[in-house]
This record gives sequence, C-alpha cells and structure tokens, in this order.
Amino acid sequence: MALLIKGGTVVTAETTTRADVLCEDGKIVAVGENLDAPAGAEIVDADGAYVMPGGIDPHTHMQLPFMGTVASEDFYTGTAAGLAGGTTMIIDFVIPAPQQRLMDAWKQWREWSEKACADYAFHVAITWWDETVHADMETLVKEHGVNSFKHFMAYKNAIMADDEILANSFSRSLELGAIPTVHAENGELVFRLQQKMKDLGIMGPEAHPMSRPPQVEGEAAQRAIRIAEVLGTPLYIVHNSCKEALEAITRARADGQRVYGEVLAGHLLIDDSVYRHPDFDHAAAHVMSPPFRSKEHQEALWKGLQSGNLQTTATDHCCFCSEQKAMGKDDFSKIPNGTAGIEDRMAALWTHGVGAGRLTMNEFVAVTSTNTAKIFNIHPRKGTIAPGADADIVVWDPAATKTISAKTHHQNIDFNIFEGMEVTGLPVVTVSQGKVVWKDGQLNVERGAGRYIERPAFQPVFDVLKKTADRTRPTAVDRTTATAAE
Amino acid sequence: MALLIKGGTVVTAETTTRADVLCEDGKIVAVGENLDAPAGAEIVDADGAYVMPGGIDPHTHMQLPFMGTVASEDFYTGTAAGLAGGTTMIIDFVIPAPQQRLMDAWKQWREWSEKACADYAFHVAITWWDETVHADMETLVKEHGVNSFKHFMAYKNAIMADDEILANSFSRSLELGAIPTVHAENGELVFRLQQKMKDLGIMGPEAHPMSRPPQVEGEAAQRAIRIAEVLGTPLYIVHNSCKEALEAITRARADGQRVYGEVLAGHLLIDDSVYRHPDFDHAAAHVMSPPFRSKEHQEALWKGLQSGNLQTTATDHCCFCSEQKAMGKDDFSKIPNGTAGIEDRMAALWTHGVGAGRLTMNEFVAVTSTNTAKIFNIHPRKGTIAPGADADIVVWDPAATKTISAKTHHQNIDFNIFEGMEVTGLPVVTVSQGKVVWKDGQLNVERGAGRYIERPAFQPVFDVLKKTADRTRPTAVDRTTATAAE
Amino acid sequence: MALLIKGGTVVTAETTTRADVLCEDGKIVAVGENLDAPAGAEIVDADGAYVMPGGIDPHTHMQLPFMGTVASEDFYTGTAAGLAGGTTMIIDFVIPAPQQRLMDAWKQWREWSEKACADYAFHVAITWWDETVHADMETLVKEHGVNSFKHFMAYKNAIMADDEILANSFSRSLELGAIPTVHAENGELVFRLQQKMKDLGIMGPEAHPMSRPPQVEGEAAQRAIRIAEVLGTPLYIVHNSCKEALEAITRARADGQRVYGEVLAGHLLIDDSVYRHPDFDHAAAHVMSPPFRSKEHQEALWKGLQSGNLQTTATDHCCFCSEQKAMGKDDFSKIPNGTAGIEDRMAALWTHGVGAGRLTMNEFVAVTSTNTAKIFNIHPRKGTIAPGADADIVVWDPAATKTISAKTHHQNIDFNIFEGMEVTGLPVVTVSQGKVVWKDGQLNVERGAGRYIERPAFQPVFDVLKKTADRTRPTAVDRTTATAAE
Amino acid sequence: MALLIKGGTVVTAETTTRADVLCEDGKIVAVGENLDAPAGAEIVDADGAYVMPGGIDPHTHMQLPFMGTVASEDFYTGTAAGLAGGTTMIIDFVIPAPQQRLMDAWKQWREWSEKACADYAFHVAITWWDETVHADMETLVKEHGVNSFKHFMAYKNAIMADDEILANSFSRSLELGAIPTVHAENGELVFRLQQKMKDLGIMGPEAHPMSRPPQVEGEAAQRAIRIAEVLGTPLYIVHNSCKEALEAITRARADGQRVYGEVLAGHLLIDDSVYRHPDFDHAAAHVMSPPFRSKEHQEALWKGLQSGNLQTTATDHCCFCSEQKAMGKDDFSKIPNGTAGIEDRMAALWTHGVGAGRLTMNEFVAVTSTNTAKIFNIHPRKGTIAPGADADIVVWDPAATKTISAKTHHQNIDFNIFEGMEVTGLPVVTVSQGKVVWKDGQLNVERGAGRYIERPAFQPVFDVLKKTADRTRPTAVDRTTATAAE
Repeated sequence: MALLIKGGTVVTAETTTRADVLCEDGKIVAVGENLDAPAGAEIVDADGAYVMPGGIDPHTHMQLPFMGTVASEDFYTGTAAGLAGGTTMIIDFVIPAPQQRLMDAWKQWREWSEKACADYAFHVAITWWDETVHADMETLVKEHGVNSFKHFMAYKNAIMADDEILANSFSRSLELGAIPTVHAENGELVFRLQQKMKDLGIMGPEAHPMSRPPQVEGEAAQRAIRIAEVLGTPLYIVHNSCKEALEAITRARADGQRVYGEVLAGHLLIDDSVYRHPDFDHAAAHVMSPPFRSKEHQEALWKGLQSGNLQTTATDHCCFCSEQKAMGKDDFSKIPNGTAGIEDRMAALWTHGVGAGRLTMNEFVAVTSTNTAKIFNIHPRKGTIAPGADADIVVWDPAATKTISAKTHHQNIDFNIFEGMEVTGLPVVTVSQGKVVWKDGQLNVERGAGRYIERPAFQPVFDVLKKTADRTRPTAVDRTTATAAE
Repeated sequence: MALLIKGGTVVTAETTTRADVLCEDGKIVAVGENLDAPAGAEIVDADGAYVMPGGIDPHTHMQLPFMGTVASEDFYTGTAAGLAGGTTMIIDFVIPAPQQRLMDAWKQWREWSEKACADYAFHVAITWWDETVHADMETLVKEHGVNSFKHFMAYKNAIMADDEILANSFSRSLELGAIPTVHAENGELVFRLQQKMKDLGIMGPEAHPMSRPPQVEGEAAQRAIRIAEVLGTPLYIVHNSCKEALEAITRARADGQRVYGEVLAGHLLIDDSVYRHPDFDHAAAHVMSPPFRSKEHQEALWKGLQSGNLQTTATDHCCFCSEQKAMGKDDFSKIPNGTAGIEDRMAALWTHGVGAGRLTMNEFVAVTSTNTAKIFNIHPRKGTIAPGADADIVVWDPAATKTISAKTHHQNIDFNIFEGMEVTGLPVVTVSQGKVVWKDGQLNVERGAGRYIERPAFQPVFDVLKKTADRTRPTAVDRTTATAAE
Repeated sequence: MALLIKGGTVVTAETTTRADVLCEDGKIVAVGENLDAPAGAEIVDADGAYVMPGGIDPHTHMQLPFMGTVASEDFYTGTAAGLAGGTTMIIDFVIPAPQQRLMDAWKQWREWSEKACADYAFHVAITWWDETVHADMETLVKEHGVNSFKHFMAYKNAIMADDEILANSFSRSLELGAIPTVHAENGELVFRLQQKMKDLGIMGPEAHPMSRPPQVEGEAAQRAIRIAEVLGTPLYIVHNSCKEALEAITRARADGQRVYGEVLAGHLLIDDSVYRHPDFDHAAAHVMSPPFRSKEHQEALWKGLQSGNLQTTATDHCCFCSEQKAMGKDDFSKIPNGTAGIEDRMAALWTHGVGAGRLTMNEFVAVTSTNTAKIFNIHPRKGTIAPGADADIVVWDPAATKTISAKTHHQNIDFNIFEGMEVTGLPVVTVSQGKVVWKDGQLNVERGAGRYIERPAFQPVFDVLKKTADRTRPTAVDRTTATAAE
Repeated sequence: MALLIKGGTVVTAETTTRADVLCEDGKIVAVGENLDAPAGAEIVDADGAYVMPGGIDPHTHMQLPFMGTVASEDFYTGTAAGLAGGTTMIIDFVIPAPQQRLMDAWKQWREWSEKACADYAFHVAITWWDETVHADMETLVKEHGVNSFKHFMAYKNAIMADDEILANSFSRSLELGAIPTVHAENGELVFRLQQKMKDLGIMGPEAHPMSRPPQVEGEAAQRAIRIAEVLGTPLYIVHNSCKEALEAITRARADGQRVYGEVLAGHLLIDDSVYRHPDFDHAAAHVMSPPFRSKEHQEALWKGLQSGNLQTTATDHCCFCSEQKAMGKDDFSKIPNGTAGIEDRMAALWTHGVGAGRLTMNEFVAVTSTNTAKIFNIHPRKGTIAPGADADIVVWDPAATKTISAKTHHQNIDFNIFEGMEVTGLPVVTVSQGKVVWKDGQLNVERGAGRYIERPAFQPVFDVLKKTADRTRPTAVDRTTATAAE
C-alpha cells in the first residue's frame, strides 16, 4: 500500500526542503513538491511539521541476561517503545559467554529478536578468543550481515577483553571489513576501586560512580585508539560519557585517525548527583556503566556533537526494574547495570539540542540517524529521506510538548531517568517500512514485523585504510651488496 | 536541450551509487538506474567513471588589481581553465580600496565578471569602516546575494583590518546573516619582519616566507576566532597553511564553535624549499601569502581535511607572469603575491587525496564542492547530484593520467606550481549549466555564459547562533529591594 | 646588630632542613645547625616553625591614581601590611600617562615610594611610543635598575598598547635585557562588551565580569605570546585568571617558549558569584580586572601552579574604599578597579596550597618568593635563605590559625575579599633587612626604611634567547652565480 | 684530606656565582669567595671554568644479563667511564627473573656492584607478583634504601608487567613511600608488530623501529599515567623517546599530576636513519628500546627539557659489542638491546643544550644532576654544590673541545653512537667523594671506592599526595533516615 506524507518540510542530514514523500512497498519512491497520491494511498498531513529519517539507536540491550537477571524490556516491547519515540531501528548486541561459540550465541539472540516490531541488527561481542572465534567472525560477516564487533574493556573476570584479545579481534575485523567497537573502561582499575569502596564501607549506589571515575574510561578509550591506530583499523567507541574519552577521540581524529564516538542521551542530560539521592531505589535506578558524570562533562559532550567529534547518539537501553535493582541493596556492585531511554532519546535531544541552540536540525538528523547508518554501512537504505531508501520516517511537530514520565511511557520499566523533563518537539507520526505505526499517541505495531537488517562489510573508509597501508608499507634494507661496499 | 549521463557511478558527499543522471534546462531532473534519454538528448557515456558535482573554488582573484599590476587571468580565461579542470563555479572577491564605497567596487567587479563562462559569486572585502560601509553591507546582502565578507588581517598601511574594523564588521555580518571570513596573518608582525629581512640585507624571494612565519598566521587565526566567539558569529578562515592556524581552528571546533577552514591545493602539496631555488623567476613564481610551508605542515593539513576540521579546498588563483613577478627582483616585498591552480586543484587532490588513501571519494566531493556550497548557502542548488540541482557536473575517469605542465595548461600564466606532477584521475567531461563544456581535451565554452549566483543570507548555523545567544543572554541583578533586605 | 633564628626548619624552594639562621647587617651570614649567637644578638625562637624567605609580591599598586581617584593604600601602609603578612618586598608599577615622559613618571613614583617600610622595586608601563620612550627605556634599565616593562592590552582610549606599541617595546626590551610583561585583555572587545551591557541596561557590578569574559583574556595572552615568540623575547603575563590564558601559556611553554605566568591569590580562591551579590558595596568591592571567574577556573589555576606553568603569585593589591567604589553606583564601568590582599596572600596560599595537598612547602616558597626573584633577576639576593642573601625572612607557624577580617587587618581599606576565611599557618615573625618588624601580632616598622632595589638586566634566559637567535638566523640565497648556472 | 677548588664560577640549578669550593672528608664544607686552603689541601685551579655538581645518571645497566648474553660494561669500568665524563653517580637496576625472590636478585646485584669506583644506587624491577614480592618491597624500602620500583610494560612472555601487576605494585609503592617507574611500551603491540615484520620477511635491524613505533610508547605512557592518577601515586617514566609519550606527560602535568619524565642523550641527538645503514653492525649497534626516532621527535624532546615537562637526562647505558649484536644477524628481535653513553652524556648535552641556546647553564645542572637527586630523594646530599653535600663535583671548561670516538673513549664497548660528534665544553676535573679522579685526561680511580647510596622513602611530593587523598576521600550516603524521610 502506498503512503503519502504531504505538506511537510523534509529535513535530512544535508538539506531542509519543502517536499512531499511518497512511499510504496516499504520504500520511499518519490520526494518532491506536490506529489500526487496514488489511488488508495494513505495520506499523512505533515503541514507545519518536519519529515525526517526515523531514528536509529545503535546501542540497545533487549532482554539481556546480565548480572544474574534478565533485562525487563524484550525485543517486542522495546522496539515498540522506540517507534513511539520516533526510532525505527535498533542495533542490539549478541554477547557470547566466554567459551561459548559465537554462532550459538548469535542463533540464540536471533531467536529472541524474532518478535521485534521494528527493524534491527546486531553487533557481536568478542569476549574470548580461539580459532572458532576467528572462524565464526568470518561466518557472521560473510553470511549474516554483521559488520561490527564489540569488546568490553571492563568486567574483569567476566567478559573483559584484554589487549591480546583486542589485537586479535581488531586485526581479524580489518581483514573482514568489520568495524571494531569498544566499551572503554579499564577493568582492572574498576575492579580495584570497587574493592576500595567496599574496604571503606561504602556499599550504596554512590560508590558506583566513584569506582568508575572518568580517568578509567579515558585510559581505555585512549588504549583502544592506539591499538586501532597501530593495527590500521577504524574504531567506534560506544557511550562516551566524559571529557577524558572525548579528548582522546578528538585528538585522534584531529590526527586524521578514523575513530568514531557515540554518546548516550542520558550522559548528555543527567549528572552524577543522582547517585547520592537519599532513596536507594532512585539512586540504583541510575546505575549504569559508565556512570552519569558531573555537569562539566555534559557540556563537553554537547560540544563533541557540535564539532562532529562525536557522531552518533544512543541510549544503551537496558531495563531493570526496581526489584531487580534491589539485588544490590547491600552491595552496589551487584546492582544490575542499565537504564532505559529508547522512547525519549529523540525528543530529549531535539529539545536540548535544536531547541537550545546547540545543533541545527540537519545535525540532529545526522546524530540521531544518518551517521549511524553510514558508519554501520546501511546508508542510504537507512538514515535518509530519498528515493530507494526504506520508508522509516518520523513526522516531527516542533511545537508539540509533553512531560516525560514513567507513568505514561511505553517502555517496560518502572522508572524513567528523564522523569519530569518537559520536551518541546515530538514525533506525531512514525512510519516503519512504509506503515504508520505511531499516530495520535497510539501505537499500531505488529509483533514480528521487524526485519533483521544485514549490514554489508567494508564501509568506504576501509578503502582509505587499505590505501594508507599500501602507501606506508614497511620495506627491508638490502644489505647483501651494501655491506660489502661499506 | 537534454543531456543524459549514462552508466556511471554517482559520487556525492554522502553516497556512491550506480545511476544515470538526466539534465534538462540547466538542471538535474533525474538520478536513477537505467534512465531513458529524451528525444534529442545528448548522451555522455560515463561507463567506468565517477559522476560528481562540479568543483567549486571558493577563493579566486581574476584580473585583480594588486601591488601595482593586474592579475593576468581574467574572468573569461580563468573560468574556462576551471572548467577544463572540473571546476564549475568560483567565488571571487570584490576588494574596495580604503575609502572607496563598497557599492562602487562591487559594480566595478560585476562589470569585469560579465565575461565569465562559468557561474560565479563574490565575497566582498571590508577594508575600512564608516557609516556607508555599514549601509552598503546591507544593500549587498539584501539586494545582491552577498552572504560573506572578507577581512585582511595583513597588509598594514593598505587594506588591513584592525580589531575595531573586525568587531564592527563581524557584528554587522551577524545582523545581516552573512559569514565573516579572514585572511589570517598579523600585519604588524609581517611589517616588522619584512623590515628585519631588509635590515639583514636579504632581499630575495627567500625572505618572503621568513617574513611571514607560521606563528604570524596562527596568531591572527586565533584572534579572529576569539573575536567571532565573543561576538557570537560564525567564521570562515581562508587559506590555512600551517599547523598553528589549523590547531586554533581545531581547538575552537572541539569547543563547539562554528568555525570553518579552507586550505589551498598548493599548501597541501608544495613546500617552502621553492623559495630558495637559485633561479629568481622560479622562486618568485611561488610568492603568495601565506607562503608555502615546510613539509610537516602539509601532512598536518591533510589531517585537517581527514578530520573535518578543514572543510573546503581552494586555490587563491591569482596569476602574475614572470615579468610581473620581476617587479620584485631587488625587493621581495614588491613581488606581486599570487599563484595559479584553478585548473589543477581537482586532479591534484584526487591523486594525493583519494589515490593515496587520505580521503574517501565522498570526502573528496565534500571538500572540493559540497562543503563550500553549504557554508556559503547555495546547497543543494550547487554541490550535489540530485534532482533540482544545477547541472554542474564532472565525469571523472579515475584511471586517466597526465603530467601537469604550464606548456599544456589553459591558465593564462607562464608558470605552473605543480609542473611535472603526474596525476591519476582526471575530468573527462565537464558539464556547466547542463552543457558539455569540456570533453576529449577540448573546451567548448561561451564568453559570458557564466551567471552571477546570488547567495541567500542566514545559512542554517545562524539559527543555532541565535538560539545560543538567547539561551545565554546576560541578565541584571535587581538590587532595588535586595540591598534594603541585606 | 645580629639576629639569630634558632631551632627552626629552613624551607627554601629547594630543600627542607633543620638549621639556625644568623643575620648581620641586614644579610644572612650563616645557615647551619647549632649556630652560636654573637654577643648581643637578638634571638628568635623558631622551634616547631618553618623559616622561609619573605614573600615577594610582584604586583602591587600603592597610592595609584586611577579612574579619577587614588588608591587608599600608600607605600608606607601597604608595605607595613605586607610585613604583617610575611611579605618583605613588593614590585610596584610606574604608569606614565600617554605622552608623559617615562623619566618624569618614574621620578614621581620614586618620590611617593620613599615612605615604604619594606624593600620595593618598579615595573615601568609603556603606554605610548615615540623616540623619548625608546631612549628613556635605556636610561631606566642602565641607570635605575629597571628590568621589566609592563603593557596594558586593555583600557582602550586610555593606556592600551596596540600591536605596534607591543612590538616596538618588546624589541627594545630584548635589546636592553629587560623582560616585557602584559596585562592580557583585548581592549577592543572589552570596550564593545561594556557597550553591549549598557545597551541591555545592565549597569550594576554584575556587568563587570560579563564585559570581560575569559575569551577576551585568552585572546590577548595568546597574542602577546605570539608576538614575543616572533620577536624572540621572553614574556611575563600578569594576573592570569582563567583557563584560556593558562592554556595559552601552557602550550607555549610545552613548545619550549620562555613565557612566565602570574596568578593572584584572589583568582585562586574567589569565584564570580560575588558580582551578583545583592549589596552593591559588596559586589563592587570585588571589581577588578580581570574579574573573578567561575569555580572551574580556580581549580585550573591551582593546577597551573602545581605543574609549574604558572610560576608566581601576587595580589594586584590596589585598594579603593566603598566611597570610592560608589563612583560607579550607576555605571559599572566607573567603579575603580582593584582589590586588596598583600597581607593575606601568604596565609591563604599556605592554607589552600600546602594544607590542602596542592603544593609542597618548597613549591610554596617558590611561588610566593623565589620564582619572582629569579624571573626579575634579584635572586639569590632575594628569594632564598642562604649566606649572602638579604635577611628578609618569615618564621612560619604551621599550626597558628586566624580568621581573616577587615576588622583586624592592617590594610588601609574597609573591605577584605577573604573576609571570614579561616587560615591555618601564619607568619609569627617577619624579618626585614635583618630586623624583626612583626612579632606577637605587633608591627614594629619604620617609615622610609624600605630600599629601592635595583634589578640588573639580562636574567639568564636572555643568554639562551641570544644563542637561539644566532642558531636560527635567516640567511640569503646567493643567486649571482646560481641563476647563470640554471 | 682537603681539596680546594679555586677561582671558578659555581653553577647550580639555582644560581651562578663566583666562588671557591672547599671539600673535606668527602663533603663540601664551604662555598664562598676567597676561601683559604687548609694546610696540605690539594688545590684545583678552576679559573675560567664552571664548578658544577657531578652528573647523576639515573638509568644504567652495568653487566646486565639480558637476551642471552651479559652487558660488556661492568660496574667498575662503567662508573670509571662515567667519571671521565663528569658523571659521579649512577642508579642502576636490579631485575629479578619472574618467580625470583626480590631479595635474592638484590643481593646478586649488590655483589656485582661492589667493584664500582663511583657512588651508585638501585631501582628494583617488579616483574611478577605474589606475597613475597609484596613483603620484599617493604624490606628493600625500609632496610636497604630503595625508593623506586621499575616496571617493564614491554617484553611480553618475559618480564612484562600487566595492569594487574602495575596496580598492585603502584599501590604498594605508595604505602611504602617509593616512586613507581615504568618502561613504557605496549608489549602486546610490540609482539604483534615483530611478528608482522617477520611475516613480511623484514629481518634486519630496520625492522626494530618499525616494530616499536611511537604510538606503542605513547599508549603505555598514557596508561601508566592513568593508573598512577587513579591510585594516587607519583610516577616516573624512563627514556621517553617520542612526542606521543611527551605529550601524555605534558597533559598530565598540566593537569597537576605528579609525573616525571626522563630522556636519554641518544634520543635527543640521534635519529632513526641509523637503522637503515647498509652495514649491519652499524645498524645493530643502535638497537635499543625504545628505538631512536625521526628528527621531529628530537626537537620535541628538547622542548620537553626546556619546558620542564621532562626533568632528567640519562643514558640507559647498556653495552653490547658487535659480536654480541651479531646474535641477531638473521633476526632483528634477537639483537641484544642497548647502547652506551655514560661518558658522553654531559658533553653532548652541554654542546647541544647550553651551546646551542636551548638550556641555561642552571637548567643543564638541573637536568643532568639536581632533578634526579630530588626525585629520588638524595638531594641535597647529591645534586648541588653546598656545604654538607657530598663532594661529587665536576669542573667544566666551556671552551675545551674534542671529537667523540670509540677509539678514545673509556667505555668498554667497540662502538660509540656519538662517533664523530664535536663537543665544546668538557669536564677537565672530576671529583668523587672529595677526591680528584679525573684530571688532565687521566683517570685515577679506585676499584670498589664507590658506595651504595641509600635513598630514603617519602620524597616531599608524597605529603601532597596524602593530603590530596584526604581532601578527596569518598564518603557514603546515609540512607537510614533519609529514605524514610523521602
């Protein structure tokens, strides 16, 4: 069935133009002024609104088994909440346990994800190393459209990747045309600081940020960057939360290195005072890693987006309800790490980004959608409004307002870290695969409608890296004759 | 008449796709696979080639009266040479003499430019200040499509703008929605160092770079950036030649400031050893300001393009032949400043950028065309391949090669600073306003066919700047009651 | 008469040692364990105390005529207050009016200073330029022991030095072996922002910091640094108050440049919230330039001292009482600029520096005394405890405490910016020229006992600068034969 | 017996003064003008010469067992060569094999060192970890005057310390008042790059620098700095060879962190072109880690000394003769790592430092002697010319010249990396423990005369670190009542 979005202003990462958008069979087929509606087409009136590519959240963890429990939001409820907030695709994570075959984990997650009602893809984590990992990486890239691998530099004695694993996996990724990504926190230091907090008798959630200070993140970011530099790979660093990590990225980029940085809506908008809240539940609800930081870091992260040193925004959506969080009542290190946000990212960033004079509308589209599509090589299928692209679209009313609340959100969690935030600018219509799935505050989603999106290997920057490697290839000195002549 | 470019790969700043391009009435009307040619359409076979937006050179000086002579290249020959090299538009400069009405200078330049055979626009220089300047700026923006003003921080006792003029003009530009640009060299220090060279008896061209060291440029860049920051304006810095200026831009951008930087093909590829060449003519032919720098600066500038801290590439095309350069035979400070390059920019940057593994093809398009179009607010009319855009197109054969030489170039100057450079990747066809103007090594241009392009005010970033100003507006303390209460 | 300080721990910038100190005829004659007291010697018991070089304040303005009034503290009361606080020498400023002969101003200030009760010297400001200034600089250096010249980059239309004056004076200073110093604020931007505040109707003291934001200071610091770099001179920047200026210094120093930075006790300890105080008198009492800054700058400045990127601490002691400050009741720009502090600097910095774990005791001595003596070339006569040095000594009780207050201070001003600060660590005895002038909370000073200290030219770093200039001297290309051969 | 050094100019890190120096019983007893010689005193005429503290080399490896051989220079010949070059003390390294008790290794090295003819001390390496290491560290600090521990971040599968060892040892060092030091190269990356070179078939010495690029060093330096920062310890980084490491140190210091950096004379003066020398012996003779770097790094390192971001100079004196180097004839990774230099450091640094206008004489003394004495807490016993200090003195003739050569040097190695360098400024007399041991080009040393110098724990900066830790100690939130109140 056809869908015509009429009368709006199309905003892409590049341009802002008055245009109608015609969708057929799940694709955008025309963008232009005064388009005619095919017979039977559904019409969406976008007068006074902006028509933008649907948001892509490159960092979610639906129904993740973690720290002895399972995230409360599953692929169905989570993608639905995303659609309600204008996000039309997620990239989630397959996280094999150490010694677990990658393919086994992959199949498990794919099974879980079948219920999704919006499109999705998977990063796959490399949590250990042997020849099967080496082999499975190839299978994933060549047969299953995986073009990114994730590495946790934290979580010692669990899923932490040390330098040897990082080097092995980064090199392998380069061969395969996949981009390595890292969670940058030095696991050894976190381990030691957690112990210190316990030794000091500080067992509450306030110990969480103190055991993971910015330096711990900055160190790991810088280390991953150097490893990528030496091995000649690109690098994507997830959820940068602090000046230290941002500065490492900024320096590397200024030096011409192909490093990308993601920032979470939460880190942009929430500060670490939450961990000292007198109510344990409130404090624990904010426990995630890396933790929220002091206010100076927030302004720095916004500048990272403005400058282009950070390219993507995400949520690390990973829901644990208060009874789950209570597992760490007496020991902060047992509080399941994770916060929600997939439904609120777009509106919160519009309000504090475009509304407050930090980002242009085009930049908003770039950091919520387009850049992710490019880096993970699904552009221009995703991330733009153009003929041929998937019809994942959000119609945005810049004047609409609401107050964010757990009472009204669609996320399957009993807490909202943005509780009480008034936002101006909201998705009034969300279109997924050419269908209206959110309109007038109503979700109209279909369990299982979401598709697994294969992401091809070798995004354009790999060509640059290969030519650079060729240009700078080491050469030997021929001493056979030279020495004699000496 | 229609033109169909068939079988090529369309490369924009965003994407790389197999597609045909159909042009009619000077516009692109369709981009897609297997387009049909309208009756009578001219067909260009782009098989194996890239189809890209024509280059835009944001920095040229055709027939400039300068230092007692006039640049040898006029608007006709210069734009023709540009077309031969794949550049389809220039932005030149109107430079009023101090005390000259802006409008008078403007009319003079417009008259000279009528003979251009490719599209063009003008930056206007602010070389002095009074109420007429203030008024004429408005006229230029509102009635004549000027959206950028240029300031020379060098050339003391001539056209130098001091801090007072900069502050006046930057503020006025902000009101009008125009972007200030600067030539960043500290005129006082240049003046003093020129004197020092003469005192030391160093009168040859080798004194030129020594009288304008990188620090002189870095200082001025940093100063202009700070003035723009304090006044809340965007800023565009022309022809950055050194690490010092680049670092100032990089820091400002990392801090979220809206600063843009241009780099010349010459500064990317030529080092300052040329000034010590034993042949005066050879050395003098390279005299331009800022001068070519030592090799370490070149690599830094490339990194500036890779990181996006520099956004545009230009030539500062300003031709003086050897007899003109000879005016400074006995005094380097009398050598007319300027070098050519409009014909060679695209091929030289492709070879050393894309070919050497420094830039992706998309980045190449961005830095040779799209970014200029965006910053100077003529995007998407210029700088992209999309329906509705002007049909300014270059068909690029990545395998074609040639050796650059003054003997074969179309530029009206007897010297080529890239003499002997072998380039791989050349424009095989150039299309201007939908017409093939360069093909099979033949120019087919029409004197006067070039149009003056009006550039609207208020590019998108002005909206951000206004909202930022609103958000951070100073407020007074009410002490009327407070003091009493104290 | 002899003086023996017994039983203390001698702390210099270099070492911490148990030692007695014997003084005779105003000089230290012996430092060692168990020294015998000469017959009739006065004995000071320093058991449990530190014996340190007396503080040197390199930045004071006693009885300065400024902004239509005269600073309330004169050379007698000011140096007395300094002695009560452990400061035994000041370097004040001669500030000629534009067009006033330097020598005339010099004589005027020398006359005013005759009443001082502690040693002093003068920086001389260069506020204009002609041949007499050029000549008088030589007279001052060669005949009057002046080895530093000051330049105000702020105060447009008054005493501001533009780039031409800066370049002239810096070059002249280099020839004479004197070090240029600058007050770094861009006068044009201050002027414009003051106007903006008035246009917005913000006339109270809160407009003061808003008209002089950190960027204005950072710009000027960077510009002065570049001018010094290009001309090959050392540079001393007074009263750095913000990260922007500190970063400019830090970068220059990291690049090997010989740049020095001073910081005021006030900027280290007071933030800009004072300007929004509801009581005009309170707010106005803090008006000085550059203004106090937000808290983040304070921590940065401490780090500047820790890293050695800032070398000296001062006060810019310049007292105006509330009736004087009231001149700007209706217009912040008419509030006389200045705050006091000479009496409190040492105790405040000890408390927040040594006590809080920011500085070692040796570093405290360096930044309050020794480094100033070195930079202004009066070391080791001043700034150390060693045989041959002037007997300017403070005996410091690290356990003594007091609460700073205008009610009890010796400064001739009705306000204390450190009011209420509890300090731990106080001067219990101050020795000036070998005489006990402060003991048991009692001053025992003599009007006119202070001596004018001549400071020799060419501190050691000038030798480095000269050799560097020799090593990097520009050379000409000989084209007489070369061209023929070409 | 007494020794009187007459007529010279005493140069310390602080001052330059005309003075005689009287030594008795191995100590300096007086410094002053016109000192009388005690009866029988030996007189050294220092007219026209500088009298400076003897050099301290904080980084040597005498008779080190390494890579299957033993360094050719032993403690006797090595300290003798040092004395001939004006260096009067070394700090060498005890390097336990993994699993070897620290105390056992310590005793072994102490036995080897008994033959030294100049004073010496030992850093002790932490190459593994268990409870005995924890215990032995205390024994070494409290009973044997060790106040520094060394960690190799390179040499995977051998003596490499991973993050866990680093964290354990740094923390333990802090408790004991010892300073951790690191050799900063990422062992994992070196391992991988060595393999890459072999895979490429590059087996000659030219592979050495390519397998250890600057990034590998920069990464490790930054990581060690962050670990030290998080754990609150000081840090000393040995042999910084590149901009990347220097920048890490510079940033950390600018941020107030207590980090120190050492640089080798070789890295200041030699570039990496040596590794491509056609003669294997010549190339292999320069193999050390980190390797010599390209020229741009040398200038940066000099700036590090000028700025004070690097504080000490050393040699990493570790001699292997050509037959030893030949072990790696077919495999660069088997070439014993090490170069000589103890004899040449002082003259080479004077020539290129003081002579070339990079350092003042006082800075020369600081970086060759005083700073090392301070950081390793043997100042003012060592590193200065003052009553009470050890009489380790060099009399320096700034006009004396020689050409450095293996043919004439006293080092027990058949190669000199400074071969052919002409130096101006030489030690004409060296005094060790009050005895003339080098004069008129003759050594007069005594085997075993050197003493083991105990270095006390807790240099002054530990007091700062402790107070900082107290000031910033984490605190718990009391939720017992608060939650109820919520």
